[in-house]
Amino acid sequence: MKIGLDMMGGDFAPLEAVKGVHLYLSGHDKPADLFLVGDQPQIEKLLAEYQVPSGHLTIVHADEVIDMHEHPTRALKEKQKSSIAIGFQLLASGKMDAFISAGNTGAMLVGALFSIKALEGVLRPVISTVIPKENGSTGILVDAGLNADCKPEQLNQFAVMGSVYAQLMFGIEKPRVALINVGEEEGKGNLLAQATYTLLKENKHIHFTGNIEGRDLLLDKADVMVCEGFMGNVILKMAESLYEITHRKKIQHEYFERFNFEIYGGTPVLGVAKPVIIGHGISHSIAFKNMIQVAQKMIDKNVLAKMKEELEN
Amino acid sequence: MKIGLDMMGGDFAPLEAVKGVHLYLSGHDKPADLFLVGDQPQIEKLLAEYQVPSGHLTIVHADEVIDMHEHPTRALKEKQKSSIAIGFQLLASGKMDAFISAGNTGAMLVGALFSIKALEGVLRPVISTVIPKENGSTGILVDAGLNADCKPEQLNQFAVMGSVYAQLMFGIEKPRVALINVGEEEGKGNLLAQATYTLLKENKHIHFTGNIEGRDLLLDKADVMVCEGFMGNVILKMAESLYEITHRKKIQHEYFERFNFEIYGGTPVLGVAKPVIIGHGISHSIAFKNMIQVAQKMIDKNVLAKMKEELEN
Repeated sequence: MKIGLDMMGGDFAPLEAVKGVHLYLSGHDKPADLFLVGDQPQIEKLLAEYQVPSGHLTIVHADEVIDMHEHPTRALKEKQKSSIAIGFQLLASGKMDAFISAGNTGAMLVGALFSIKALEGVLRPVISTVIPKENGSTGILVDAGLNADCKPEQLNQFAVMGSVYAQLMFGIEKPRVALINVGEEEGKGNLLAQATYTLLKENKHIHFTGNIEGRDLLLDKADVMVCEGFMGNVILKMAESLYEITHRKKIQHEYFERFNFEIYGGTPVLGVAKPVIIGHGISHSIAFKNMIQVAQKMIDKNVLAKMKEELEN
Repeated sequence: MKIGLDMMGGDFAPLEAVKGVHLYLSGHDKPADLFLVGDQPQIEKLLAEYQVPSGHLTIVHADEVIDMHEHPTRALKEKQKSSIAIGFQLLASGKMDAFISAGNTGAMLVGALFSIKALEGVLRPVISTVIPKENGSTGILVDAGLNADCKPEQLNQFAVMGSVYAQLMFGIEKPRVALINVGEEEGKGNLLAQATYTLLKENKHIHFTGNIEGRDLLLDKADVMVCEGFMGNVILKMAESLYEITHRKKIQHEYFERFNFEIYGGTPVLGVAKPVIIGHGISHSIAFKNMIQVAQKMIDKNVLAKMKEELEN
């Protein structure tokens, strides 16, 4: 198993990426082979400095870096020697099995959507995020922000992909899938929600439990929470802000600690042919380590093959 | 000034409504005249029991009550002698200047939309809610849940109505109006957000400050936050749940105390010809008192006349 990691992505790269690799290697007896994509001299220097064992590491030099604020499509096109562009080239050609970056989110999405293929039958790939629940469990939110104007058929697929992810990655045997809506009863909501409800209800590949409301998002009402990406993005960012606000206000509680999204190790893009994981710009070593682990588990558990199967039949 | 109050609406009515009236009267030298609509014997008994001074009170007997879970349109039609139906009859005929209820929300909305007129020129009335900001200030969210499928022109009017409300009710001279979106730059978002941005930018009746993201909702980035009602409802209910969750977890902090929506005194319906205020089902005396005060202030400050003026010109 070969996992590619963009060493130049994120506000604290490559230092925190190197420390994340170190953390990952120290925690695993049989680690995956890691392809470290980025500026070779910088990476080598840091690897030596932090005495990272070299057994499972291959450095892939990249001359350029796509900055956080560059225009995604243009940057990917013009900077063919950037770490993100090279990462997707290696992923597309089969030299790597997964690719991870905490760099320019837009460039990662463009790369995921256009450099590698969507899974057969997938209308639109989707990103998911973890939402910490009051009782200590976690739920998955799909779409967490990739698709702004969605059709019911797309949301219906998001539900399937989210359900497979929850099943294989979180070990939930029969994930409860719910639609985010403004009321519990069937027939509630906007046109999209109403039409989506009908599809979800008839979808035999998921265990649909009905609508949930805003007040249920942080409760253990569902394992997979489905909405279009415009609202999903707002919900996710509002949840993330709770961590920052409680920290600034010195409100210390383990519940709000779980809104530190670094601990979940990035956002996987679901519905593309290979695992692509996008980290926060502020990722520290723990986030890099966790992203590598998520990629490894996605490969180990054959998450994408299972998604393909569920979407096909 | 005559303010009507549904004494039978809410989980703890009429007791908490009576106590709210008492609270209101004890806090005001020159209170508004209150029309207490509901079961006369029950109300009289409680008024006597709590020794509420009778100077500014008129009891309007109502034989029936619309329950919390009745179908709004049907109930309003069939229960003409219910407290909500009578309230709207008195409001429509000019015998009352405002109407308040913590009862069946749907029936209140149907009553507001169909028993009394919309302000001239208003495409769709809207409901607003207060959102507590990290720095102690408050913002207004419009639409907090009335309109599920919106057009850009409607959101543009929500912005004007919210701005007038923030100006006159909260004393903010030049309210900052922002559009809830998935990114800060113009051109971000779904089709609705993109088209709405263009309208807001050109709207001379508001001080439009651009897009805000989910992470900004609880920060002091804007005084008026505009979105369609489907997302607004989810945001509001998610915010409300923070109060409940922190209470259950015994996380005591004044910031989360401010997510107790009772202290804001209900949700005004904006864009209809007379003040209509809808309370939470769980309203206690303080909420009833605050709703009366909000109605009084809306009348005092001529909020609806100002909205009409801003929407006309």
